[in-house]
Amino acid sequence: MMIWTNMAIPNGLFRTLTFEVATAGVNWTNLNEEIKESGLFLPLDPSPKALIGGVVATNCSGTNALRYGTMKDYVVNLTVVLADGSIIKTRHRPRKTSAGYNLNSLFTGSEGTLGIVTEATLKLAIIPDSFSVATATFPTIRAAADAATKMIRSGVPLAALELMDDAQMGVVNKNGGAGGRMWQEKTTLFLKFSGTKSSVEDNVRLARHVAKAFRCNTFEAATDQKEMDSLWAARKQALWASLAIRPEGTQIWSTDAAVPISRMAELIQACKERAEKLGLVTSVLGHVGDGNFHQMVMYDPRSPEQVQATKKCVEIMMEKAIEMEGTVSGEHGTGLGKKHCLLKELGPETIGLMRAMKNTLDPMWLLNPGKVFDE
Amino acid sequence: MMIWTNMAIPNGLFRTLTFEVATAGVNWTNLNEEIKESGLFLPLDPSPKALIGGVVATNCSGTNALRYGTMKDYVVNLTVVLADGSIIKTRHRPRKTSAGYNLNSLFTGSEGTLGIVTEATLKLAIIPDSFSVATATFPTIRAAADAATKMIRSGVPLAALELMDDAQMGVVNKNGGAGGRMWQEKTTLFLKFSGTKSSVEDNVRLARHVAKAFRCNTFEAATDQKEMDSLWAARKQALWASLAIRPEGTQIWSTDAAVPISRMAELIQACKERAEKLGLVTSVLGHVGDGNFHQMVMYDPRSPEQVQATKKCVEIMMEKAIEMEGTVSGEHGTGLGKKHCLLKELGPETIGLMRAMKNTLDPMWLLNPGKVFDE
Ligand SMILES: Cc1cc2nc3c(=O)[nH]c(=O)nc-3n(C[C@H](O)[C@H](O)[C@H](O)COP(=O)(O)OP(=O)(O)OC[C@H]3O[C@@H](n4cnc5c(N)ncnc54)[C@H](O)[C@@H]3O)c2cc1C
Ligand SMILES: Cc1cc2nc3c(=O)[nH]c(=O)nc-3n(C[C@H](O)[C@H](O)[C@H](O)COP(=O)(O)OP(=O)(O)OC[C@H]3O[C@@H](n4cnc5c(N)ncnc54)[C@H](O)[C@@H]3O)c2cc1C
Repeated sequence: MMIWTNMAIPNGLFRTLTFEVATAGVNWTNLNEEIKESGLFLPLDPSPKALIGGVVATNCSGTNALRYGTMKDYVVNLTVVLADGSIIKTRHRPRKTSAGYNLNSLFTGSEGTLGIVTEATLKLAIIPDSFSVATATFPTIRAAADAATKMIRSGVPLAALELMDDAQMGVVNKNGGAGGRMWQEKTTLFLKFSGTKSSVEDNVRLARHVAKAFRCNTFEAATDQKEMDSLWAARKQALWASLAIRPEGTQIWSTDAAVPISRMAELIQACKERAEKLGLVTSVLGHVGDGNFHQMVMYDPRSPEQVQATKKCVEIMMEKAIEMEGTVSGEHGTGLGKKHCLLKELGPETIGLMRAMKNTLDPMWLLNPGKVFDE
Repeated sequence: MMIWTNMAIPNGLFRTLTFEVATAGVNWTNLNEEIKESGLFLPLDPSPKALIGGVVATNCSGTNALRYGTMKDYVVNLTVVLADGSIIKTRHRPRKTSAGYNLNSLFTGSEGTLGIVTEATLKLAIIPDSFSVATATFPTIRAAADAATKMIRSGVPLAALELMDDAQMGVVNKNGGAGGRMWQEKTTLFLKFSGTKSSVEDNVRLARHVAKAFRCNTFEAATDQKEMDSLWAARKQALWASLAIRPEGTQIWSTDAAVPISRMAELIQACKERAEKLGLVTSVLGHVGDGNFHQMVMYDPRSPEQVQATKKCVEIMMEKAIEMEGTVSGEHGTGLGKKHCLLKELGPETIGLMRAMKNTLDPMWLLNPGKVFDE
C-alpha cells in the first residue's frame, strides 16, 4: 500500500515526498512516474521493486551513479523512529548546510540498524533534454576497462558507463538476444550520454575517439530513441537473461565489490580466472565508471562442491578487493553475508566505533540485530 | 609548516593526499597549485587561508558549491585520532561504497568535536576546458532572486550563481571599484559557466534569456580571460572591500543562513528591512544558487546600542531562516555563537541524538567542548 500524505509544490530542485510505513513504502519507479510532469526525477536505478525506505537504508545506486551519485546525495532530511520509540527529524530542508552532525548520511546506508526511516524529503534531478546511447566492443577485458578509465580521467561527461564481459554477452544471446538483435560475444561497454543536444553530440564524439584509441572492434551510436532502446536492451536485460537461461534447479549468486578505478581491470581478470579454475560458470557486469562490478556465479545448491566453490570464489573477490584498497560492497550493503569481510576491510577499531554508535542508538539491539557487524 | 608525506599517482578522479598535524595542515590553495599539472583540482572556495583539516571539520564550500557540492562530497577517507587516543581510518578508497556506516560524513562538518582529522584522501574534480563569466543587474532583489531561481529550476548548468545587493555594489565602488572599473549600484547576479566550449556558449545564451525574462537592466558576458577576471572582480573583492572602507574602529559581523531557494528572496528582503529599521549599515552577498546568503553588518563595538542592534539583526535572520525551513548555517558551522540557534532549528530530540554520539566518541568532552551544542 502506498499513501501520499504530502506532495508539496516543487521548490528549486526539491520536492517534499512523504510516505508512511516504510515497509509498505513508496516504490521509486512509481514515484518517478508520478512526478514526471514536473521535469524532475530521482536518478537512481536499483531493482524496479525497491522502496524508498530500502533505497535509503542501503544507500543504493545503479547505472546512473556515475553521473548522479548515490542515494546519500538525494536525501534532504529524514524522519526516523529510533529504537526507544522517539521520533526525530534529521534537519529542515535547506539545499546546503553545515549545521550540526550529518545525520542524513548516518542513517542513509545504515541498513535499518540505527532507526526506521518513515519519511524522506528528497532532492530531485532535472530530466535532461537529450540522451544518447552507444556501445563499443573490445578484444579483451583489459582494453575495455582501460578505455573506460581513460574516459573517466579525461572527463568525458557520461551519464552511465557499464561493462559486460564476453560470457555475459553470451548469456544474452542464449536468451534469444535483446533489443531485437543478437550481440557480439565480446567484452562490451555500454555508454549513456545526457545533456543538451549539442553537448551530447560532442560527448559521443569524445567517447568514440577514446574507444578507437583503445582498439575497440566496433563502436555503435544510436541516432534515435528506437536505436537507443535497442542498444541499451542487452544491458537492461542482463540479469533477467542470466536467471532465464540457467538450468533447472541452479541458482545465481550475484555479488559486487568496488575498487579504485585503476585496479578494476586487474580485479575483474583475477576473479574470472579464479572462477574458471574452480570450474564455475560466471559472468561479469560492471558499473565500471564507478570502479564497481558484479560477478554472477551460477551454481547448483544441491551440489556441496559447487556451493563450496562458489563461496570460495566470492571470498577471493572480497579479499582481492580489500588488497586493492577497495570495498566489499559498492552498492548492496553488508547485511549478514558480508560482515566478516567488512571486518577485514575496515579493521576492528573502525568497526568498534560503528558498534559503539549502534550501542548508543540501539542499546538493546532491537533493530536488525546482527546486520553489518556482530553484537 | 606543511609536510607532504605521500602524493600518489593520480587514480581516476582521485589522488591520495596525506598531511600531518592538522593544525598546521595543508592549505587548499597550495594543494591546488601543487597538483594543477594533473588537470585536477579540489573545487572548493572558502578562505584562501583555510587548511584541509579546517575545511573538512566545517564541511566548507564557497562559490563553486552550486556545481561541485561541499567538502563532504570530496572525502574518500579520513584518518582520525579519537578522544581516547586511538586512530581509525574511515574506509579504503573505492569511488563508491555502501559498506558500513558513513563515517566520512560523520566527521566531516563535526567541527573537531568528535576527533582530530590527521589525513584525508580526497576526490578531485577535472579542471574544465572552458570558462565564462557574466553579470546581470536587476531593479530589485526580488527580480534578481527570481531570475536565479528560474535558472536553477530550468537546469541551466551554472558553475556559480552569486548575488550582491545594491549596498554591497556600493561598497565596491566606495573602495575604488574592482576589475579596473566602477559598477552599477544595483542588485547584481554573478554567473560562472564551465564545460566544453560549445556547452559554455549554449549556457550563457540560456542564462541571458532567463535574465531578460526577469527584466534585467543589463547583461554582460565576458569574451576573453581579461574580461572574465574583470567581471568576477567585484564578487571576489566584496569582503575585502567591506573591510577596507569601514570607518576606523568599526567591525563587520558576517553571518549566513540557507533556506529552500523559493524562500530566499523573501528572507533577504526581510533581513534588509529589519536591519534598516534597526539603523544598521548592512549589505548582502549570496551563494544564491544554493539558497545560501551572507549578511554583513557594520557596527561599532564601542557602542552598546549598535552591538545590541547587530545581535538582534542576526537573531532575526536566524529565526526567519528556521521559520522558512532553512538552516542557521549554510557553510560556516555552528561553533559557539550559533548553538542556541541550532537547538531551535533541530529541536532537543535531534540535538539529544547528536549529544549522545558526542558522549560515545568523547565521553570526557575533551575535543572542542561546548562547540555545536552544550554539554
Ligand atoms: C534486479 C535487481 C537489480 C538491482 N540493482 C541494483 C543496483 O544497480 N544498485 C543498487 O544499489 N542495488 C541494486 N539492487 C539491490 C536493491 O534494489 C537495493 O539495495 C534497494 O535499495 C533495496 O531496496 P528494497 O526496498 O528492496 O529494500 P529491502 O531489500 O526490503 O531492505 C534492504 C535493507 O534495508 C532495510 N530497510 C528497509 N526499509 C527500511 C526503512 N524504512 N528504514 C530502515 N531500514 C529499512 C531492511 O531491513 C534491509 O536491511 C538490485 C536488486 C535487484 C533485485
Ligand atoms: C575571506 C573568507 C572567506 C570565506 N569564504 C567561505 C566560503 O565561501 N565558504 C565556506 O564554507 N567558508 C568560508 N569561509 C570560512 C572558512 O574559510 C571555512 O570555514 C574553512 O573551512 C575553515 O578552515 P580553517 O582551516 O581556517 O579552519 P579553522 O578556522 O582553523 O577551524 C575551523 C574549525 O575546525 C576545527 N578543526 C580545524 N582543523 C581540524 C582538524 N584537523 N581536525 C578536526 N577539527 C579541526 C577547529 O577546531 C574549528 O572548530 C571564509 C572565511 C574567510 C576568512
